[in-house]
Amino acid sequence: MRIDILTVVPDLLQSPFNHSILQRAKDKGLVEVHIHNIRDYSTDKHKNVDDYQYGGGAGMVMSIQPIADCIEKLKSERKYDEIIYMTPDGDVFDQSTANNLSRFKNLILLCGHYKGVDERVRQLYITKEISIGSYVLSGGELAAAVIADSIIRLLPGVLNDETSALTDSFQDDLLSPPIYTRPADYKGHKVPEVLLSGNFKKIEEYREEEAYRRTKERRPDLLK
Amino acid sequence: MRIDILTVVPDLLQSPFNHSILQRAKDKGLVEVHIHNIRDYSTDKHKNVDDYQYGGGAGMVMSIQPIADCIEKLKSERKYDEIIYMTPDGDVFDQSTANNLSRFKNLILLCGHYKGVDERVRQLYITKEISIGSYVLSGGELAAAVIADSIIRLLPGVLNDETSALTDSFQDDLLSPPIYTRPADYKGHKVPEVLLSGNFKKIEEYREEEAYRRTKERRPDLLK
Repeated sequence: MRIDILTVVPDLLQSPFNHSILQRAKDKGLVEVHIHNIRDYSTDKHKNVDDYQYGGGAGMVMSIQPIADCIEKLKSERKYDEIIYMTPDGDVFDQSTANNLSRFKNLILLCGHYKGVDERVRQLYITKEISIGSYVLSGGELAAAVIADSIIRLLPGVLNDETSALTDSFQDDLLSPPIYTRPADYKGHKVPEVLLSGNFKKIEEYREEEAYRRTKERRPDLLK
Repeated sequence: MRIDILTVVPDLLQSPFNHSILQRAKDKGLVEVHIHNIRDYSTDKHKNVDDYQYGGGAGMVMSIQPIADCIEKLKSERKYDEIIYMTPDGDVFDQSTANNLSRFKNLILLCGHYKGVDERVRQLYITKEISIGSYVLSGGELAAAVIADSIIRLLPGVLNDETSALTDSFQDDLLSPPIYTRPADYKGHKVPEVLLSGNFKKIEEYREEEAYRRTKERRPDLLK
């Protein structure tokens, strides 16, 4: 998989992709992440990438020219499955969207910044708009990192143990049951007996019950 | 405001806090962000921070001891308003939670990693559990960065123009209307006439209508 991220603050995105699981996925050749500085594509003599909004109002708007030129260049080099704009008014991202996107080959993620992009960018280039939740961030960069992380960890071979992703929250529409590790007794606070019993049938039952109980209590919306 | 972030991959969080709005907020003395490496608190001779889960199953679990010791140390130094665990099964984060958290003075954000933390950490220390959405990430680090970003930008003085945050999506339960900037004609694709009219009453009407239309089309759940 190849992911191209378009941003006006490329440095902000350096560390999330250079550690932990994402670094390992790159090292194994399972994913390429290319970060593009939109400013490099500005034909403006001051390399401006934003301007005041028509009709007045607070906040700057990202201009169409540098974004359009960057996307056109990438599209001339390969076919993209989706050109995604990260925006608070996009479709709300969830695990099934992550699963779907993880099957694609080439993705562009455009990060909004300031008040967002000129509407014509959305009309002419964007094939999908995604919001990572009902809240506003100072830019789409962290949202793009979130999307990339959630997709990349699903690629076969990225996680050490493939069953690990399958037992995650949401993959079966249930939240995860409580988990415990050593010590069995921490200052008087003990691990539930059943988990120490060695009786795998009972452990399985306990986990199913707890997953269901927790989902019902916290996220009844997941139980259709 | 002071935010303490507890993580096993502190380097992952370097760049998001050293650029753009978050850097400016720190430079102005409006926020302090302290990133703590949980591994530094491990009393294990190999500085381990995780272990196999009781009852078997894929994925490692973060041990209670280093997390507990780190939180105890911070709590001995100051009073915390909330100790928040970033977890996919937490309360779903939204703009009103961001608004509420932005009024606090001291927050701890604990990042889950691997399969998550020993349940006893949640029972003994955590006062609030937050999920940034219905999807799984490889760790809570990006989620913590998202929460911090959404809160910090709301602190008075952080954004250059305070009205900018007030007109964001969600602050009035409406998505933002479309925005445009120069040129008025981009390769034949024009800015709506009304925005160029100079008639501020009509512009205001257009924006209200478009904000409502877009919200109804994309996020009817926001219109109660």
